[in-house]
Amino acid sequence: MLPFYIQSTASTLAEDLQDRINQKTKPLGALGQLEKIALQIGLIQNTLTPALRNPHIVVFAGDHGIAEEGVSAYPSDVTYQMVLNFLSGGAAINVFCRQHGIRLQVVDAGVKVDFSPKMPLIHAKVARGTRNFRLEPAMTAEQAKQAIERGAQVTENCHQQGCNVIGFGEMGIGNTASASALMSRLGNLLIEQCTGRGTGLDDARLQRKTEILREALAKHRTQNAFEALCAFGGFEIAMLCGALLKAAELRMVVLVDGFIATAAFWVAYSMFPPVKEYAVFCHQSGEQGHHRMLELLEAQPLLSLQMRLGEGTGCALAYPIIQSAVAFLNEMASFESARVSGKV
Amino acid sequence: MLPFYIQSTASTLAEDLQDRINQKTKPLGALGQLEKIALQIGLIQNTLTPALRNPHIVVFAGDHGIAEEGVSAYPSDVTYQMVLNFLSGGAAINVFCRQHGIRLQVVDAGVKVDFSPKMPLIHAKVARGTRNFRLEPAMTAEQAKQAIERGAQVTENCHQQGCNVIGFGEMGIGNTASASALMSRLGNLLIEQCTGRGTGLDDARLQRKTEILREALAKHRTQNAFEALCAFGGFEIAMLCGALLKAAELRMVVLVDGFIATAAFWVAYSMFPPVKEYAVFCHQSGEQGHHRMLELLEAQPLLSLQMRLGEGTGCALAYPIIQSAVAFLNEMASFESARVSGKV
Repeated sequence: MLPFYIQSTASTLAEDLQDRINQKTKPLGALGQLEKIALQIGLIQNTLTPALRNPHIVVFAGDHGIAEEGVSAYPSDVTYQMVLNFLSGGAAINVFCRQHGIRLQVVDAGVKVDFSPKMPLIHAKVARGTRNFRLEPAMTAEQAKQAIERGAQVTENCHQQGCNVIGFGEMGIGNTASASALMSRLGNLLIEQCTGRGTGLDDARLQRKTEILREALAKHRTQNAFEALCAFGGFEIAMLCGALLKAAELRMVVLVDGFIATAAFWVAYSMFPPVKEYAVFCHQSGEQGHHRMLELLEAQPLLSLQMRLGEGTGCALAYPIIQSAVAFLNEMASFESARVSGKV
Repeated sequence: MLPFYIQSTASTLAEDLQDRINQKTKPLGALGQLEKIALQIGLIQNTLTPALRNPHIVVFAGDHGIAEEGVSAYPSDVTYQMVLNFLSGGAAINVFCRQHGIRLQVVDAGVKVDFSPKMPLIHAKVARGTRNFRLEPAMTAEQAKQAIERGAQVTENCHQQGCNVIGFGEMGIGNTASASALMSRLGNLLIEQCTGRGTGLDDARLQRKTEILREALAKHRTQNAFEALCAFGGFEIAMLCGALLKAAELRMVVLVDGFIATAAFWVAYSMFPPVKEYAVFCHQSGEQGHHRMLELLEAQPLLSLQMRLGEGTGCALAYPIIQSAVAFLNEMASFESARVSGKV
């Protein structure tokens, strides 16, 4: 068993929080999902006056042996190149983090190419890419544990810097294939329901991706979520899984991004169900399969902007809405304080 | 005919803008709705490098004679009380505008109670509430024109202060009834498809509201959108209509909020179809009917958070996403500049 201890957030404070929400100058329930988020964050922080501090987004990058099979529209080199793009500030996630004052950290979870130790990223490489899971398990149990532990350590470091809200993104050419295989196995779903075009496959290549995944799923007969993670990878998914489990253990607000991040969440959730009480589902991806995945997890995403980019972009875009939820709870007047009449 | 001249934004710049979007370091189309917004704003401002300046949200407040019929869960006094709440900074829209650096202006379009001239709101009252449209038209053609002109003037003043992006909200007990009647008439829809619980009616009162509206629709046989506006009101809806037409004329980005604001948009759009090219639909309301209204207008809302509050809250919450659209266009690296490989 992995070494995480995640408490339920359930408490008698829920009633007081709901009262406080209901006394605000608005019809009952009129702030919709914001009210649910306010309640959730109040419970996570165990207070009537929650606050978000020092937000971080961590992007885990890793390569995938399965990419050899042509399951992505882009070459594997792009994982490395995009990490350089993150470091120089030119990717979408950089733009959105700057906009919202979110600190961005990039982690080498297992990129094929080595980075100079001087580069300002977190060096946590488990190996130079996973193995091709069409032929063999993507990683060993030892590697998976190492990835989970290193992910947990990344979160721990953010927490020590005063961060209490953290989002996780990923970059890894081929990783929609991993996520699709995990979804199919964890949800006991036909692989066709779980595969999509990723970064932009055409019909023929989507069909080929689906066939390869069907074959791999038949090959690897896993017993549980951890074994599925080992079989289908990747390192960035395993690390993300450890990072979000640690965040829940530390009672941080956990921002879950799109298709791949939600697959990582699902692995974590299978092992530690209370992790869900800490999770805010930020964005329903345009990647086919994510809608179903969220439905199965009974998760209501805040946004649905037809994006399919990963990198934690959904977390960054949803962040101001989460801030709004906390802000209305703390700053709005009550019917009494504003002397506004109630319902007739 | 009303004195607005609204140009189409269509131009050959569209191709260059789309190229610029496609060269960013992301799979083609991977930023989903953000890409559409970036293109739209580029066309509105007729530039490859758009910028949002001095954002405003204007809340128009007005009372409704139809409220006498008990179509709202709250008493009419709440319109006045909520204006005071806006002025003292305690309403939801205050919180969200502060959060995003949006300047908030409040307009007395036709509140029943008079405000002291010293109060920091825009005094544009057409009358002390509309008439009860169950019995007679909500307003005269003269009043409607006056409201439209005053709304246009409010936008003009914002524009003169360097504002190029403006959202419109409303406050008016009873105004979902007005909006439902307008929707039914403009869309030629059964009133049952257009009515909802507003601020929180129970089943019996919802049914009564629906019956009253059915009766009123049968009574007022209008020929066009302007006549429908006169028949069903309200002053805040008419003023909002004029304000957004002027904003389009001035080539400003126009943020459309929820059910009532979209009904006002629909009136404007019926008279001047190009206004739609300037409109960003911010939020699909939890009010039943809004989903259908947006569908009929072929409008894709940015958010759908089950809110049903009005006040322009949807505009304020969507604003950072609109900023993100402009930011990625201006700040992201291209495949070439970041030396990232393209599709294989």
